[in-house]
Amino acid sequence: MAGDQTVKATRRDLLSMIGMAAGSAAMYRAMTTLGLAAGSDYAGPIRLDGDPKGASVLVLGAGLAGMTAALELRNAGYEVKVLEFNERPGGRNWTLRGGDTYTELGGARQSCGFAPGLYLNPGPWRIPYHHRALLDYCRRLGVALEPFVQLNHNAYLHSASAFDGRPQRIRAIKADLQGHVSELLAKATQQGKLDEAVSAEDKEMLLHALRSWGALDDDYAYKASLLTSAYRGHAKDPGGGPGAAPTPSEPLGLSEVLRSRLWRYLQNFSAIEFQTTMFQPVGGMDMIGKAFGRALGEVIRYGAKVTRIQQDGGGVTVTYADAADTSSVAQEKADWCVCTIPLSILSQIPIDVGAPMKAAIDAVPYLSALKVGLQFRRRFWEEDEAIYGGISYTDLPIGQIAYPNAGMNGGGPGVLLGAYTFEGANGYEFASMAPAERVARVLDIGAAIHPQYRAEFDNGIAVAWHRVPFTLGCAGNWSEEARAAHYDDLCRIDGRIVLAGEHASYLPAWQEGAILSSLDAIGRLHERVVGG
Amino acid sequence: MAGDQTVKATRRDLLSMIGMAAGSAAMYRAMTTLGLAAGSDYAGPIRLDGDPKGASVLVLGAGLAGMTAALELRNAGYEVKVLEFNERPGGRNWTLRGGDTYTELGGARQSCGFAPGLYLNPGPWRIPYHHRALLDYCRRLGVALEPFVQLNHNAYLHSASAFDGRPQRIRAIKADLQGHVSELLAKATQQGKLDEAVSAEDKEMLLHALRSWGALDDDYAYKASLLTSAYRGHAKDPGGGPGAAPTPSEPLGLSEVLRSRLWRYLQNFSAIEFQTTMFQPVGGMDMIGKAFGRALGEVIRYGAKVTRIQQDGGGVTVTYADAADTSSVAQEKADWCVCTIPLSILSQIPIDVGAPMKAAIDAVPYLSALKVGLQFRRRFWEEDEAIYGGISYTDLPIGQIAYPNAGMNGGGPGVLLGAYTFEGANGYEFASMAPAERVARVLDIGAAIHPQYRAEFDNGIAVAWHRVPFTLGCAGNWSEEARAAHYDDLCRIDGRIVLAGEHASYLPAWQEGAILSSLDAIGRLHERVVGG
Repeated sequence: MAGDQTVKATRRDLLSMIGMAAGSAAMYRAMTTLGLAAGSDYAGPIRLDGDPKGASVLVLGAGLAGMTAALELRNAGYEVKVLEFNERPGGRNWTLRGGDTYTELGGARQSCGFAPGLYLNPGPWRIPYHHRALLDYCRRLGVALEPFVQLNHNAYLHSASAFDGRPQRIRAIKADLQGHVSELLAKATQQGKLDEAVSAEDKEMLLHALRSWGALDDDYAYKASLLTSAYRGHAKDPGGGPGAAPTPSEPLGLSEVLRSRLWRYLQNFSAIEFQTTMFQPVGGMDMIGKAFGRALGEVIRYGAKVTRIQQDGGGVTVTYADAADTSSVAQEKADWCVCTIPLSILSQIPIDVGAPMKAAIDAVPYLSALKVGLQFRRRFWEEDEAIYGGISYTDLPIGQIAYPNAGMNGGGPGVLLGAYTFEGANGYEFASMAPAERVARVLDIGAAIHPQYRAEFDNGIAVAWHRVPFTLGCAGNWSEEARAAHYDDLCRIDGRIVLAGEHASYLPAWQEGAILSSLDAIGRLHERVVGG
Repeated sequence: MAGDQTVKATRRDLLSMIGMAAGSAAMYRAMTTLGLAAGSDYAGPIRLDGDPKGASVLVLGAGLAGMTAALELRNAGYEVKVLEFNERPGGRNWTLRGGDTYTELGGARQSCGFAPGLYLNPGPWRIPYHHRALLDYCRRLGVALEPFVQLNHNAYLHSASAFDGRPQRIRAIKADLQGHVSELLAKATQQGKLDEAVSAEDKEMLLHALRSWGALDDDYAYKASLLTSAYRGHAKDPGGGPGAAPTPSEPLGLSEVLRSRLWRYLQNFSAIEFQTTMFQPVGGMDMIGKAFGRALGEVIRYGAKVTRIQQDGGGVTVTYADAADTSSVAQEKADWCVCTIPLSILSQIPIDVGAPMKAAIDAVPYLSALKVGLQFRRRFWEEDEAIYGGISYTDLPIGQIAYPNAGMNGGGPGVLLGAYTFEGANGYEFASMAPAERVARVLDIGAAIHPQYRAEFDNGIAVAWHRVPFTLGCAGNWSEEARAAHYDDLCRIDGRIVLAGEHASYLPAWQEGAILSSLDAIGRLHERVVGG
């Protein structure tokens, strides 16, 4: 390396240096051989080859299923129109910000008082990495994403009946369960108690693995040390200068951990639907719905409440009222209909379909859920408790507290999700309360975990999904029996009508399910159109 | 809930509704009682009370330690000057972007060819949530942060000698180890083999916990099922419409998992230093150094290579040369000196300190490390493999491959970290190679994990820390013996000189260590100044 040489390694230089010049195709073959292709039911952008010859499609609902159908069918040459109940695109893809108002079933109207830049996603709020279709539409529509933090080791697990109601850091429960389990198994292994189950060679390796994975000492014990503190946290954290050595913390006992039942939350962080890396759109989930809406423009007729869906051999006729003035009625006709109206609503609308599809439409109850957004004057969870994003779980009726994943460490006010719970699961009937009362109850309950709630609260908003006028629930709640009996009938094209939405997928309640269902439905519809 | 009521829940309304009106102080007491105060050696912004009466301090080095000292001492009324070797602030807080050049020891000069917006952080690249001092300076200096993904369940664990060299998804190794360990322990428990170690009551709870945590079936078996696939991934992912039900994947056998030794990487994601939530500054780590640099402005003299540090009862005299023209020599005098020059460099500079401090300066070898940034023409890891951010670990000499955490899902070219390895750990001597050769070797090795490397490579840059002129290594590598013998002597004020930096902390190699060391050092210095 003599003298002053300017080296800029470029692709061209290096392909030869590394002695390989295989082309792209060879690379992908190699990749497939290695088994690295990403598992996903989504096989890339849909191809609707063949001329629809001017066929028209009426799409009901401008949620993600409806807008996906509209976008792709329009691109394939169909004449497309969308009828949407709300005055905005997105459906359950929805974000509330300061200045928004929301009127629930029963007439209670809330005004959102959040500061600029803060928001609540009452519906979907996170996107798994393997939801490839949704991610692909985000990319194609230019929706910027940022990480959504599901597991924050410094957030809490809490039970009113464990540790005298004191919340525990997730890192401590996680490390201590893993450590104690590893110690128990290592000792049983050493004592020859697993000789039937594990070969002698594997036994040695198992002991190595348990020591590493469980943070065990040389005697396979899980106990207070700088080693275990490196996972569960220190009693005194390290610092700078003299006297700043860290000191170990004392692990919780196995019995304490087991009896706390806090371990039951740990798998919430490991399920494939909640694994890292998850995403959220920058600025709110409705950035996706808005991007679809912009792409479709005039194709969507907003404020249209569908009241009847008719079909005969010649086409489909949909009657709808103006959502703001239901005495004003109109009709729309098309050759085909893609109906994405949630079954909770669709089951109340007269529709000309056969008995099997009608039975399927009526077979699916809808889940309810409560989400409450609370704005606090300062981000005390960050400033006081070093909790940046993520979720604390509790057995109190609020279910969880989720911290905002945007604007972290920036100071100023913040909005956290003060409750996300499924109605009835805990005996609380939030939906029957007035919105302000829901907010007050959630504040009161949550103060057991964050006492700062009382001093720092500014304003809040509550969405109880059983009272959301356009869905009357948050998602279809298929039982195994109902799915076996009705799912295929729900999905089958009935004359000139096909249904789509998360309810017509194996990814219920997820936006990905809505999109995949829609792509599947329009694929089959298109085959019929160009094949017929 | 009759009629149309406008409800906006505000703090004022609700404090009375929830029947509590305790003030802020009571809240914080309650919080402390609950044990929720964030553990951190950093106790908030330093207070340097008392008048330094015009005392002057010369700070050597404009890394984070030096700039923290300069900022706080200036704010406390000292006359402050900083001498810095580089032409930029930050030291190891450093980012390389397109258009930058870097000349290493030996004269090899690299030009960075990255596309706009892409970068490599050759030094620190992630910030743990509990590095409260660094986070506080980021907040005070307006440095925007975004999440850094350490654990990506869909990234790989790889060993050349396991699974025929095929990389395994982290989620599979993680779920399968946890599942098999849970099954083994549950069965031993059921068979009464743990009766000595676990009480009858705990035994029942342990079985519940293992079933939940290990994804075991009702017979405590870990085997192919939709349950285990919900953690490790499906063979066929769920989709929309008919025929889109998911199918289970087959877990790896216990023996396979153990013999692969891939379990050894799992704790890299659980150690407190790497736990969620981690951060990176938006746009590159040097946003922090630049923000400090802007705050200090003219206080910093760049391009100054310190050649001698003298002191007597009256003050400190530092001789320095122009880094670009070492024949041009000057001197700077002050009452006190805070020296943050890395020990690897300082040990070569004549300095008037006592034998104990000199011995300490000479006692600490420096770690070397290699980081290689590779730009690819497309983000194949995202597009082909659904890997968004995070790190794949391998036992190949590249150590790891880290995927960019910014611009995810946005398309276009991307820069990944193609190697992050510690010199000598694997028998490779990257530092002795020319930079382009390092890049080529890293590409060649990494193609075993990502065959797309060969077709998609664009350009690269390699930083071998043993050849970085301003540190000759990446961080002080204290042995336990050296720390016991020399650490306190290193930190003690010697006449008018005090040292600071990550090397003078219990957080070696971390930026937090540099800042905490600096705050500790100037606190002690200030006491001496105002007390003397």
